[in-house]
Amino acid sequence: MNPVFADLQTSVFETMSRLAREHGAINLGQGFPDDPGPADIRARGAEALVEGFNQYPPMMGLPALREAVAAHYARHQGLDLDPATEVMVTSGATEALAGALLALIEPGDEVVLFAPLYDAYLPLVRRAGGVPRIVTLRPPAFGLDAASLAVAFGPRTRVVLLNNPLNPSATMFSRADLEMLAGFCRRHDAVAICDEVWEHVVFDGRAHIPLITLPGMRERTVKIGSAGKIFSLTGWKVGFVMAAPPLMRVLAKAHQYLTFTTPPNLQEAVAYGLSKDDAYFAGMRRDFARSRDRLADGLQGLGLTVLPSAATYFLNLDVAPLGVADDAAFCETLVRRHGVAAIPVSAFYAEDPVRNLVRLCFAKSDATIDAALDRLSHLA
Amino acid sequence: MNPVFADLQTSVFETMSRLAREHGAINLGQGFPDDPGPADIRARGAEALVEGFNQYPPMMGLPALREAVAAHYARHQGLDLDPATEVMVTSGATEALAGALLALIEPGDEVVLFAPLYDAYLPLVRRAGGVPRIVTLRPPAFGLDAASLAVAFGPRTRVVLLNNPLNPSATMFSRADLEMLAGFCRRHDAVAICDEVWEHVVFDGRAHIPLITLPGMRERTVKIGSAGKIFSLTGWKVGFVMAAPPLMRVLAKAHQYLTFTTPPNLQEAVAYGLSKDDAYFAGMRRDFARSRDRLADGLQGLGLTVLPSAATYFLNLDVAPLGVADDAAFCETLVRRHGVAAIPVSAFYAEDPVRNLVRLCFAKSDATIDAALDRLSHLA
Ligand SMILES: CSCCC(=O)C(=O)O
Ligand SMILES: CSCCC(=O)C(=O)O
Repeated sequence: MNPVFADLQTSVFETMSRLAREHGAINLGQGFPDDPGPADIRARGAEALVEGFNQYPPMMGLPALREAVAAHYARHQGLDLDPATEVMVTSGATEALAGALLALIEPGDEVVLFAPLYDAYLPLVRRAGGVPRIVTLRPPAFGLDAASLAVAFGPRTRVVLLNNPLNPSATMFSRADLEMLAGFCRRHDAVAICDEVWEHVVFDGRAHIPLITLPGMRERTVKIGSAGKIFSLTGWKVGFVMAAPPLMRVLAKAHQYLTFTTPPNLQEAVAYGLSKDDAYFAGMRRDFARSRDRLADGLQGLGLTVLPSAATYFLNLDVAPLGVADDAAFCETLVRRHGVAAIPVSAFYAEDPVRNLVRLCFAKSDATIDAALDRLSHLA
Repeated sequence: MNPVFADLQTSVFETMSRLAREHGAINLGQGFPDDPGPADIRARGAEALVEGFNQYPPMMGLPALREAVAAHYARHQGLDLDPATEVMVTSGATEALAGALLALIEPGDEVVLFAPLYDAYLPLVRRAGGVPRIVTLRPPAFGLDAASLAVAFGPRTRVVLLNNPLNPSATMFSRADLEMLAGFCRRHDAVAICDEVWEHVVFDGRAHIPLITLPGMRERTVKIGSAGKIFSLTGWKVGFVMAAPPLMRVLAKAHQYLTFTTPPNLQEAVAYGLSKDDAYFAGMRRDFARSRDRLADGLQGLGLTVLPSAATYFLNLDVAPLGVADDAAFCETLVRRHGVAAIPVSAFYAEDPVRNLVRLCFAKSDATIDAALDRLSHLA
């Protein structure tokens, strides 16, 4: 058996969701909304299932969806993508990420990563034969600095893997951060894999800056997006990959042999969804920001310390003031005794973890948030 | 970029389907039915989209589907699988296969394969770090022999990858073949990955023999199935993996990081479908056998030579009597000039290909088959 996979734990998201079910806890762990998602998009998927084509769609995705993706990113981020050669549909952003790493890494290549990191990153880099070089980011800003980048980048650097906006910190990299990183990519001739699944879930009038739009990055960035995150339908597992043709040709081969294609009915529904107007996306952001504020204000009202959340479905509790030294043990207690599931941020570090942060998902109904606050009322 | 993927061609199935669209050809290439699939199963999926849960299902699959898979294989193949620990749902059989290879192979491990082989096998084995050891099977029987197995197996053999029933030859391995192979697996302590996606599409009263049911194989077989193939809904991309817990624990890690999970609405619909009674599956086989006979009889009526088809959606034309020496060039002419897309069987060989066989998909309506026969009427 392959040791990279044989030695792994089950994902903390899965484990926490299971514990939540077992203990009847309110699940603020794994990042998914508790509403059923946009009714019209679901209806469109249902129509396609009943009336439409249920056989293999083109391997790169339905032309209608690839055109919708290109149009969507042109309108929202000013990108100029050729749907025929620069857009591919995958079975979720996870497949996109796995495929990109398997396609781009040769054994021995160094891959620069940033901790906190999503738990799939490191095993996938290792299984692809990459040598991880981790830059550790620190709260509260979780920003980049030139000295750490200079240590991480070297002559064997081939790939950089960035999550922006960043889960679990709920931060966004500044333009200065991204420009600095782009400079390193250009100088080291590295490809950036940019996991931007949270690009639409940004708050308070902030604008997401796609790394691919920075000078010199158009030809060396693989941008990954997620319909599940854009439309709060996390179970659908429809992702997108965007890259220049020389990269895309190789990414397509990995996709061809990882899943080959993605259900056409869901693709049709997502194509329809992506054509929604700005008001829809603004409304989505406003609703999530309201939920964020409801949870943050509630927690602060309980005397708890909350870090700001600029993006994603998440905010972080600083549990140091509660005297907590081990966030993972604290989360165990939280789910078993207080009936609230959360994610310990230490799970996002391979070494030298931050141990005082606990991630909570606010993408929930008011009733769920209020019930969770009630259960947390004896914490402080 | 990784050379395993960078040097690959687009899949012959995709390429032929594209050529078929471009030339208005009748597509008997890529294996998919041209009917819309069972209406009740599609309706069940639609209902789940509209009324059901659209967020992340459990990573291993919906409990209802895992129970349905276990019950289905208990009834149809006498397997005794624990749904909680021995069944996993994947985003299609391709993901199941990719995950199994990435999970089980350590770089340098030898993997025994059988040609003709499905085009994903070899790149996936290589990308996983495996060293392929190919046993070449020959028409018309495409059976195993002890001498070739003795050459292929060695002290570094860790994995055997078998497709049974076998695409594109439309043959099934005999019990004697499978017993011989099981013996080699036991003696070499190898794990068999058994791609049995065609297990239900078998004709003329034949019974599929799952390798996992042979003595000593229960603990060393990874069995892969496909709802897309079972229900003729190839676009759905819902696969199953069955294996003993020590194997499953590692397979689950690969799945966790390749796609994480599979759309819950499609899972619900497949769970419903799997509970169909024997009459449904018998009827499906009867209908496909009728289509097979319609195409085979028609081709023979045109003076063409057809190999028998025991299983799968396919039959093979022997084009040697037509004086054809290059099946791939012949298929190019077929799609461009005669308006019928087919698959050259040489595409399933890495070396020393069979060059006189052309695979045709008969899983089509009578009208499609008749129209194709009409277009092929000037061939002989
Ligand atoms: C794939 S499960 C994890 C979902 C998610 O993005 C998160 O909770 O961080
Ligand atoms: C994944 S496309 C190929 C479908 C198929 O099994 C075949 O045509 O052989």
